[in-house]
Amino acid sequence: MNAFKQMTIIGVGLLGASLAKVCRERKLAERIVGFGRNAENLQRAEQQNVIDHGTTVIEDAVAESDLVVLCSPVGTIAERFREMAPHLKAGCLVTDVGSVKAPLVRDIEPMVPDAVHYVPAHPIAGAEQSGLDAATVDLYEGARCIVTPTSQTNPQAVERIHAFWQDVGMRVQVLDAAEHDFIYGAVSHLPHVVAFALMNTVGQLKTREQEDIVHLSAGGLRDITRIASSDPVMWRDICLANKTHVLDLIDRFQDALGEIKQRIEQDDAAGLKESFKNANGHRGKLVGNNS
Amino acid sequence: MNAFKQMTIIGVGLLGASLAKVCRERKLAERIVGFGRNAENLQRAEQQNVIDHGTTVIEDAVAESDLVVLCSPVGTIAERFREMAPHLKAGCLVTDVGSVKAPLVRDIEPMVPDAVHYVPAHPIAGAEQSGLDAATVDLYEGARCIVTPTSQTNPQAVERIHAFWQDVGMRVQVLDAAEHDFIYGAVSHLPHVVAFALMNTVGQLKTREQEDIVHLSAGGLRDITRIASSDPVMWRDICLANKTHVLDLIDRFQDALGEIKQRIEQDDAAGLKESFKNANGHRGKLVGNNS
Repeated sequence: MNAFKQMTIIGVGLLGASLAKVCRERKLAERIVGFGRNAENLQRAEQQNVIDHGTTVIEDAVAESDLVVLCSPVGTIAERFREMAPHLKAGCLVTDVGSVKAPLVRDIEPMVPDAVHYVPAHPIAGAEQSGLDAATVDLYEGARCIVTPTSQTNPQAVERIHAFWQDVGMRVQVLDAAEHDFIYGAVSHLPHVVAFALMNTVGQLKTREQEDIVHLSAGGLRDITRIASSDPVMWRDICLANKTHVLDLIDRFQDALGEIKQRIEQDDAAGLKESFKNANGHRGKLVGNNS
Repeated sequence: MNAFKQMTIIGVGLLGASLAKVCRERKLAERIVGFGRNAENLQRAEQQNVIDHGTTVIEDAVAESDLVVLCSPVGTIAERFREMAPHLKAGCLVTDVGSVKAPLVRDIEPMVPDAVHYVPAHPIAGAEQSGLDAATVDLYEGARCIVTPTSQTNPQAVERIHAFWQDVGMRVQVLDAAEHDFIYGAVSHLPHVVAFALMNTVGQLKTREQEDIVHLSAGGLRDITRIASSDPVMWRDICLANKTHVLDLIDRFQDALGEIKQRIEQDDAAGLKESFKNANGHRGKLVGNNS
């Protein structure tokens, strides 16, 4: 592994600052520059030695870097790329952490300058908290990272970005961007939508004495709705970016729910047991896997 | 507190055997009899000293008891009551652990012999595993127990059953049976239906290479679908017993989901953020409470 002379992290929040920490610890870059719009946050990141230098001027942030990692919210990644594109030096590698890939690839690929290589990535990492203060050196450790090159992506660049995320500690896997978006629509975006909708349903119900009924709940509701505490802006942006797949998956979920509902309506005991047994079986596949 | 001379537990599984254990430890009954249909299970419970005596003959099980607790699956409780009713002695108290109350009250109340008192209860306790071997002395400790007497229930009997569940270690609360069924339909039955439906949706999806896509999931899906591993027969019986409320709550959930879906379809960023923020707020109420 060759350390990058200088890397830039766009967005020094949970994902960006955690990445800076692990790159620092593993000496993946000689110098780490942070870009953001909040000067105070950048200053704190400098003081904590998370980054070597923080700047709110994108040209200063990227002009000398061999690697740029876009860690800003998914709704802003393409815009940040547009701003920095004219300032990237020849040979620079760019990757990102966006949770939705096809729209980013569609928007960014036409803007990539000659002699610069963009390799889209989605490290499957996160935490309940966000921001610099929640950042940890082991956020990415052992987790999966999906890399989604296109037919236009330089194979050597893919190899280097693949190696970079591996050096960070991740299990890297290559997928087509559209397939990525379908898969993570199903295993991540749909469950969030469902949890939000369930919380909105139950959260507004009251007892006859006008108490919130959630106060009477047992552990099951707490578990199933944990992800309903997720950041509304981030999930709004993800759902809108992955709109087509998310809508298709909501349709599929509505069908599965409709089947159960119909079996209850019709007192179809055998059918209902079968629906629930199937769910048991699928859940068994899920927990059989420790990824 | 006066110990019962003899108590009978109908159904020596997770709930029944755990109840026997705590009653033994706290000396709530001088003698504990277990009834079940599996003689081998009763024998093991006897050998482990969970019960003093096990029998598959319901008359033998209940004839001498001052307290009978129906711990069999919710779909069988009324039937067990019907079988034992002629053999109950005068002054006997009967309670149960069924998760749905109004249909049980409706079925059982007309069968209650003179001088016998039935006080419906729902201890909110359970575990991932079921059966005698999963039973623990502290299953009920600190959890909530809802007691749902009717206008016909003898007040002194209510007081004694209230005290009994408190002695077991539970926080006892009185609710109307119909309100209980609505509330637990919302905080427990609906979330289970949703988890089963979500698991059925995602569980059958494959990658282009015909791998199960659940293998690519992160932690969120595992959490939200934990309760999709729940017992299919138990949940079938609960959903059918609480049919009216469960169907109404599925409707409400479909509306909440429909609202989010529409906001995604219409690219309504402000509305979508609001939906998700509301869910955050409701979830905050839920976790603010440690019950």
